[in-house]
Amino acid sequence: MSNPVIKQSAIRNISFGDNVVVVEPVNIYECKIGNNTFIGPFVEIQKGVVIGNNCKIQSHAFICELVSIGDDCFVSHGAMFINDTFAKGGPALGDKSLWKNTEIGNNVSIGTNATILPVKITDNVVIGAGSVVTKDINESGIYAGNPAKKIR
Amino acid sequence: MSNPVIKQSAIRNISFGDNVVVVEPVNIYECKIGNNTFIGPFVEIQKGVVIGNNCKIQSHAFICELVSIGDDCFVSHGAMFINDTFAKGGPALGDKSLWKNTEIGNNVSIGTNATILPVKITDNVVIGAGSVVTKDINESGIYAGNPAKKIR
Amino acid sequence: MSNPVIKQSAIRNISFGDNVVVVEPVNIYECKIGNNTFIGPFVEIQKGVVIGNNCKIQSHAFICELVSIGDDCFVSHGAMFINDTFAKGGPALGDKSLWKNTEIGNNVSIGTNATILPVKITDNVVIGAGSVVTKDINESGIYAGNPAKKIR
Repeated sequence: MSNPVIKQSAIRNISFGDNVVVVEPVNIYECKIGNNTFIGPFVEIQKGVVIGNNCKIQSHAFICELVSIGDDCFVSHGAMFINDTFAKGGPALGDKSLWKNTEIGNNVSIGTNATILPVKITDNVVIGAGSVVTKDINESGIYAGNPAKKIR
Repeated sequence: MSNPVIKQSAIRNISFGDNVVVVEPVNIYECKIGNNTFIGPFVEIQKGVVIGNNCKIQSHAFICELVSIGDDCFVSHGAMFINDTFAKGGPALGDKSLWKNTEIGNNVSIGTNATILPVKITDNVVIGAGSVVTKDINESGIYAGNPAKKIR
Repeated sequence: MSNPVIKQSAIRNISFGDNVVVVEPVNIYECKIGNNTFIGPFVEIQKGVVIGNNCKIQSHAFICELVSIGDDCFVSHGAMFINDTFAKGGPALGDKSLWKNTEIGNNVSIGTNATILPVKITDNVVIGAGSVVTKDINESGIYAGNPAKKIR
């Protein structure tokens, strides 16, 4: 029986805009957070992520590497992003050439417990609670379901 | 580059009944928790929430403003509530007149990773794991799916 | 108004293999973790759980009592397990004779926000993001949806 390496969640190496509020505990590192953005508790944001101005990243959200989020976006509680689609039948692990990126436009609201695969989502989109977004969304509107489809 | 305002999750201004157990870290504030109720780790409960007696609020649950929960209820891991349905195509932000309330009866069990939109749920109801509840539930029974429907 | 009993999440009474990394805060106790396994922040792993070698248990995952996981498995962010199916119309509470176990084979990858009811999953399986697995999976392949079905 061995002793594990124990690391601590932290706020580390972040470029913060003005008037950002963060509620600890969080694990956010090596990313860029815009002006007036709020980050709730129990959130993880990984390196390289870019989040715009006036966003709310609510409790329990997870934002992975290769995600960029525009201005005036709302990422609700428990909403999570993905960069690894298990394309070869399992996790890419070290091989980041298999990872894909996600680009979220401006004024996009992602519902509670929604899951976002690596896609592009245009401006002015609402993703319903509990949805799983599997394809690009090029048209503004309201999308919901698993897989998410346009409902209005 | 600025410094963010860093706040800490806490247990703050709560009316606790007898024999409540809480496992930190949690972020729970300005709410009312009944007798013999358990609250697991990584839970957020917001202001104004009322939770009855003999309930279990499991890890990773999120209970928002305008939710009331009766006695003998079970809110499983990762189950989350919603008060803002993005009715105007995005979050209500400061305009709480757009928020809606949720009333959960007695002996209601909400499954793991379920998502509850603002609805009324009567007594003696089971919500299956991973369900998304979008409408009032006026009849006792077992409901599951996205959107949740009565299955038994 | 009473004072609650406040407990702290912890790393407690665990049999760790070699080269395990854990990112706190976590609540993991009385379980067995194999060599080279990673455990991210905001994770709960309950007593009696066995996790093999070379696994990744990502942030916000929840692994309950009566779950065993093989080698080379990936439990993604927000993925959660269940041992109590509310078989009698509500939680079993103290009556663990109503709980059921879950056995995950080797090289199984469970997607983000997926929910796993008490089942057996064979080796070399991928569970898509946001899926709800309600039945045993005896054949290798890729499964997704609510309820999860084989897609490839």
